[in-house]
Amino acid sequence: MSTPAKIQRIAVLTSGGDAPGMNAALRAVVLAGEHYGLEVFAFKHGYQGLLDNDHIRLCGADVLHILQYSGTIIKSARCKRFVDADAAELAAKNLDALDIDALIIIGGDGSFRGAEHLAQFWNGQIIGVPGTIDNDLYGTDATIGYATAVAIAMDALDKIRDTADAMDRVFIVEVMGRNAGFIGLSSAMAAGSERMILPELQNDKPLTVAALVKHIERVQKIRGDGSYVMVLSEHQWPGGAVALAEQLEAEYHLPCRPCLLGHIQRGGPPAPADRILASELGVHAVELALDGQTRVMAGIKNHAPVAVPLADTWQKKNPLNKNLLRIQHEIFNPVKKNGNGQ
Amino acid sequence: MSTPAKIQRIAVLTSGGDAPGMNAALRAVVLAGEHYGLEVFAFKHGYQGLLDNDHIRLCGADVLHILQYSGTIIKSARCKRFVDADAAELAAKNLDALDIDALIIIGGDGSFRGAEHLAQFWNGQIIGVPGTIDNDLYGTDATIGYATAVAIAMDALDKIRDTADAMDRVFIVEVMGRNAGFIGLSSAMAAGSERMILPELQNDKPLTVAALVKHIERVQKIRGDGSYVMVLSEHQWPGGAVALAEQLEAEYHLPCRPCLLGHIQRGGPPAPADRILASELGVHAVELALDGQTRVMAGIKNHAPVAVPLADTWQKKNPLNKNLLRIQHEIFNPVKKNGNGQ
Amino acid sequence: MSTPAKIQRIAVLTSGGDAPGMNAALRAVVLAGEHYGLEVFAFKHGYQGLLDNDHIRLCGADVLHILQYSGTIIKSARCKRFVDADAAELAAKNLDALDIDALIIIGGDGSFRGAEHLAQFWNGQIIGVPGTIDNDLYGTDATIGYATAVAIAMDALDKIRDTADAMDRVFIVEVMGRNAGFIGLSSAMAAGSERMILPELQNDKPLTVAALVKHIERVQKIRGDGSYVMVLSEHQWPGGAVALAEQLEAEYHLPCRPCLLGHIQRGGPPAPADRILASELGVHAVELALDGQTRVMAGIKNHAPVAVPLADTWQKKNPLNKNLLRIQHEIFNPVKKNGNGQ
Amino acid sequence: MSTPAKIQRIAVLTSGGDAPGMNAALRAVVLAGEHYGLEVFAFKHGYQGLLDNDHIRLCGADVLHILQYSGTIIKSARCKRFVDADAAELAAKNLDALDIDALIIIGGDGSFRGAEHLAQFWNGQIIGVPGTIDNDLYGTDATIGYATAVAIAMDALDKIRDTADAMDRVFIVEVMGRNAGFIGLSSAMAAGSERMILPELQNDKPLTVAALVKHIERVQKIRGDGSYVMVLSEHQWPGGAVALAEQLEAEYHLPCRPCLLGHIQRGGPPAPADRILASELGVHAVELALDGQTRVMAGIKNHAPVAVPLADTWQKKNPLNKNLLRIQHEIFNPVKKNGNGQ
Repeated sequence: MSTPAKIQRIAVLTSGGDAPGMNAALRAVVLAGEHYGLEVFAFKHGYQGLLDNDHIRLCGADVLHILQYSGTIIKSARCKRFVDADAAELAAKNLDALDIDALIIIGGDGSFRGAEHLAQFWNGQIIGVPGTIDNDLYGTDATIGYATAVAIAMDALDKIRDTADAMDRVFIVEVMGRNAGFIGLSSAMAAGSERMILPELQNDKPLTVAALVKHIERVQKIRGDGSYVMVLSEHQWPGGAVALAEQLEAEYHLPCRPCLLGHIQRGGPPAPADRILASELGVHAVELALDGQTRVMAGIKNHAPVAVPLADTWQKKNPLNKNLLRIQHEIFNPVKKNGNGQ
Repeated sequence: MSTPAKIQRIAVLTSGGDAPGMNAALRAVVLAGEHYGLEVFAFKHGYQGLLDNDHIRLCGADVLHILQYSGTIIKSARCKRFVDADAAELAAKNLDALDIDALIIIGGDGSFRGAEHLAQFWNGQIIGVPGTIDNDLYGTDATIGYATAVAIAMDALDKIRDTADAMDRVFIVEVMGRNAGFIGLSSAMAAGSERMILPELQNDKPLTVAALVKHIERVQKIRGDGSYVMVLSEHQWPGGAVALAEQLEAEYHLPCRPCLLGHIQRGGPPAPADRILASELGVHAVELALDGQTRVMAGIKNHAPVAVPLADTWQKKNPLNKNLLRIQHEIFNPVKKNGNGQ
Repeated sequence: MSTPAKIQRIAVLTSGGDAPGMNAALRAVVLAGEHYGLEVFAFKHGYQGLLDNDHIRLCGADVLHILQYSGTIIKSARCKRFVDADAAELAAKNLDALDIDALIIIGGDGSFRGAEHLAQFWNGQIIGVPGTIDNDLYGTDATIGYATAVAIAMDALDKIRDTADAMDRVFIVEVMGRNAGFIGLSSAMAAGSERMILPELQNDKPLTVAALVKHIERVQKIRGDGSYVMVLSEHQWPGGAVALAEQLEAEYHLPCRPCLLGHIQRGGPPAPADRILASELGVHAVELALDGQTRVMAGIKNHAPVAVPLADTWQKKNPLNKNLLRIQHEIFNPVKKNGNGQ
Repeated sequence: MSTPAKIQRIAVLTSGGDAPGMNAALRAVVLAGEHYGLEVFAFKHGYQGLLDNDHIRLCGADVLHILQYSGTIIKSARCKRFVDADAAELAAKNLDALDIDALIIIGGDGSFRGAEHLAQFWNGQIIGVPGTIDNDLYGTDATIGYATAVAIAMDALDKIRDTADAMDRVFIVEVMGRNAGFIGLSSAMAAGSERMILPELQNDKPLTVAALVKHIERVQKIRGDGSYVMVLSEHQWPGGAVALAEQLEAEYHLPCRPCLLGHIQRGGPPAPADRILASELGVHAVELALDGQTRVMAGIKNHAPVAVPLADTWQKKNPLNKNLLRIQHEIFNPVKKNGNGQ
C-alpha cells in the first residue's frame, strides 16, 4: 500500500445468485474498512438496493460472526432493470448523494457486467469480488463459493456411493455449472465417480444413451462391481438427471435413480477455502480502492493477489485444469487402458 | 435370557432397499452370536443369496468397524422371484443343508412378507429386524435408517434456507416416504419449513396449486420474509418437485427451485440413533432366536425390546405422531392463529 | 387445551450452560405464544437478566430461522447471586412490574433449583423446559441438547477410529457428563468403542490402570486388531484424558493419545431430535401455562407430553438404559464371552 | 510422458503419521499403475513392512472406493529402526527379491529422510508423495491431509463459537502443527478467531499471560462482545490448552475452557482438496517413475505438477502465506487499527 488514495466512504453489495463465503467477503470489507478508517455502507438486495437507495451503515460488531454462514446478510438479487441507462443513472445519483468513493460488488459475471454498465454513468471507483459457485470467471484461481459447492456435491456423491455399492446400482447426480464443468469435474474426481457429463466434454461429441450404456456395462464388467455413479452438469441433458434416469430404465431396462442437488450446493457452513479466499479478497478489494484502482476484479493467482480488468473476467475463458481432466477422464477410466511404454 | 434354546447356527441377510444402520445391525447379530457361542452365516444380496446359496461365515473381526458406514457389507437386493413357492422351497433346502436354526432378516415390509412366505416352507425360526428409512412398520417406535434419513433431509433443508433467505425465494425439497410422511414431517419440523405436502395430509383434500400460492403469499406477508421452503414427500405430486416448481413458475410467475434428494437420504455415516437402535435390535433378534421365538420382528417400544408378530408389522398402521403434526401444521403455521382462550 | 387460563403475558429465559436446541425451544415458545394470542418477553443472560430487568419483546419474525443454530440468541449465564432471597425478591418485582403471568425457564437442574427458589417469592406460574446436554433430569426421556452432544462425540470417535485403525493405536476421548454417563454410553455404543469409563461404572469398583492395560491387551489379542478407543466421562479420572494417556505411556510404555472434546459438544447445527424435542417442549410449556399449571417441567415420556414437579427433576435419578449398558459393556465386550445355553 | 522407462513393477507404502487422503493417493498409484500396465505391490505398516517383507499385490478393484475414507488400508507406522544401515540393506534385499523397479513413499519429512537413507543402499527409483496434515514440506503448495485437518479444526472452532457467544466466554482450542502454524493460521482465519498462538508468531517474542489477558479485555471492550476464541498450535504453551486455561482462571479469574482436538484432525471423510491433490500426486508419482526419475517428491506448485529433490523437502522451509498472516493478525485484529492514509 504505497500511496493510498484519500477515500473516506465505501459501499458494498452482493449481487446475483448467492454464494457461500459472500458473508465472509462482506465481513472482510467491513473489517478492512474499519482498519483503514473508512466508513462502510451496504446496499441491500444487490443492484435493486442501489435503485431503491436501501442502504445501511456497517461496522465491525455487525459482521463479527457471519463468516460461518452461507447466504448474505445484506441479501442478494438479480436486477433485470439494471441494464437500462436510467437505472444506472439513478444508482449513480444515489451513490453520489451518499458521498461514496468506491463501490465493491461481490458477485459473478452478470454482476460484473452491471458494474461496467454503472461505470459508464458514475465516476466513483468500482471493484469486483468474484462470488459465484460456478468458478467461471477469468483471472482468479477460484471464486468464492466454489469450494463449498464442490464439498457439498462430493458429500452427496459419497452418500450415493453407499447405496450404489449395497444394491449394485447406477445413479445420476445432477450438479450446478451450466457453462463450466468445474463443480462437475472436481466433485467427480473427489468422489471417484465412474462418469462425468460436463459442458467441456459435450462440446465435441455429445454423449448418446447407447454409448453411455456401453460404458456402464464395460466398467461393471472390468471392475466386477455393479455400482456406477455419474455426475451430470446441469443443462447437459434434456430434462436433466430425472429424464436421463427414465431413459435408461425405459430404453435399456437399466435401473437408475436420479438426484437433483439444486440450491443445496449454495448453503451450509462455507468451506475453509471459501472463507479464507473471501477474507483475502475482501481485504484486497478495499486495498485496491485505497490504491485508487477502478473497474478491476480482486483475484488470487498462484497465491498472490491480483487486479483483473472487469471485462476480462467474462470475456476471457477460465479453462478446466487439463491435468485433472486427463486423470479423471482417462487414467481413472478403466476402459481406457494404456500398456506400459505405449 | 432364562432358558435359551439349544440353537447353534444362525444366518442373517439384508433385504430390500438398504438403510443406514443395517451394518450396525449385522455387526450386533454377529457379536451377539459370538457372545452366545453361535456360528453366524450371512447370505449375500438378500433373498437372492438364499436362492443362489451365496453365503459366508462371519466372525467378530469381520464386522468390528462397520457400524460407521451406511450400506450393507453383505449387499442387499430386491428379489421378485421370491414370491413363488419353488423359490421358497429352494431357500428352505439351502438353509437346511447348512443346518441353520434361525434366520434373521433385516429389511422392510416387503422383506417381512418374504419371510412369512418362507415360513410356509421352512421349519427354522425366522426373526425380522426393521431396516427401512421410511419408518412405516407397525410395532416399533423407530426403524433402522429413519433417523439418518431425517438428519440428511434436515441438513439439505438447512442449506436451502440459507439461499432462500439470501434471495427471498421459494424452494421445494422432495424427500422419501411415498406411503408415510415420517421423513417429511420430522425434517420439516426440524428445519422449520413453511409447508409440508405429506401422504397423511393429502388424503382428505389434496393441495391445489392455487391454495399453495395463496398460502405462500399470506405467509410471506405475515412474516415479512420472502423465504419459503416446502417439503414434498415423494409420489404426492404428479412429476414431483421438478413439476411443481415448473407449475408455480409457469402458472403463477412465482420463481421456485426444486431439489430431489433421492438416495442421498440413504448414505453417509449413520446417525447415532440408528446405530444404537440397530445394535439393540440386532442383539434382541439373536436373543429372541435363543428364546425359541419365530415369525416375529424385534422392535423397541417405549425404550423396551418387544417381539411383534411379523404380519402385524405391515397389516397394522404406524401413524404419525399427532402432537408433532398438530404443532408443525397448526401451531407453527402463521395463517392458523388462535386468539387466547378461544 | 380444554380451559386455557386467561393469561396474557409470558416471559422466557435460558439459563446455565447452553445446550443445542435452546433456540428451537425459544422459537417454539414465541410461536406458540403468538398462536394463542399471548405477548412474549425474553430476559437476557438467564437469571441475571431478571435482576437487571434486561428484557426484550419477541415476536414470530424475530425467531423464524434460529432453530438451525446452537447457542441461544437471548444469551445464557450462571448467576451465583440468585440463591439469595433479595435476588429472588428483586426478580419477582421486575416480573410483576412487567405484568408477567408465567415464566418459562429453559435450563438444567441448577436453573430449576433457581426456579423453585423464585417460586418462594413470586406468585406467577413457573414452567421449566429441560435444556442440558447431560440428560440428567428425571421425568423426561431426553433433555434438549443431549442428542447433539452424542452426535458430536460419536463423530469425534469415528474420526479417531480412522487413525487408530491406520496406526494400530490406543486413544482416549474425554466427553462431557460428570454426574451421568449418558453421553459416554451413547457415543461409545454408536461408535463401537472398546471401553467406557462412566460414572455409573466407576461407582462400585473404579478402574485401575493395570486392569485397563490388561483389557487392552486381551481385546487386541482376541480381535487381532491394535485399534482400541476409549470413552472417558469427565471427572472420572484425575487429570482427565491427558493424564490417563501420560500414565499409560509412562507406566506401561503403551502409546496412547488423548482428545478433550470440551465445549465442542455444545455447538454446530442441533441434531434433528433436539430441534423436534425442543419444539414440542416449547409448545408444551406454553400450553401448560395456559392450563394454569406451575412449578412443573414440561417433559416427554414415551412420546407423550408430561408435566413433572420441578423438584422431582433433580431429586429423583434418571438412570442409564440398563439394556444398552448391558449390550455395550458385556455383549459387545470380547473378553466377556458366554457359551451357548450357559 | 514422452519416453516412459521400461519399468514393470512398482511398490507403494504409507509411512509415519497417517493423513486423510493417503487412501486416495494409494488408489491413484494403483489405478495409474494399472493404466500403464504396471504391477503394483504394497508394503504394509510403512517401513516396517519393508523389513518384514509384508506385502500384497493390489489391483484396481481393491482400491475403487477407498478415497472416501481417512486412514490407510495398507496401514502406517513409525519405524525407529529404519535409521540403521542393516535395516535399509534388508529393505533393499526384499525390494530386489520382488523385482521392484520403483518405490513410492507416501508420508512426511521423517518418511522422506528414511527414503534418502534407503537410497544409499538400493538402486531402484524412489518417489515421495507428501502425506502429512502439517503442510510443512518445501516444494509443494499443499500436502495431503492438510485441507482436511483445517476443515476439522474450523468445524470445532465454529462449534465453540456458538457456546462462546451464548455465554460471553473465552475458549482455547489446541490444534496440530508443532513446527508450523499452517493448521493454526488457516483454521483461525476460517473461523474468525480472535487470537492465534503459532510457532511463527512465538519466535520473536513469546506471548505472556499478562499480554494475552490485556488483549482479551481490549477486544471484548472494542467489540462489545464477550466471546473470544483462541487457536493454540501444539507445543506452543507448556502444558498446552489445558494448562493455559487453568492459568487464566487461577491467575486472572478469567473463566476459560480448553479443547484438545488431537487426532480428530486426522479422520473422517477427507476434504475434496485432499482427495483431488492425492489423486493428482499419486498419478504424478507413477509418471515420474515411468519417466525414470528418482529421489524426488511429486508436488504441485501453482497448479502444475513438479518434481522436488527429496532432501529439499525438509531442508528448505515452507513459509506461511505472509498476506494471510498479515490479514488475520493485523487487519482483522481490532486493537491494531490504522487511520486512513497512514
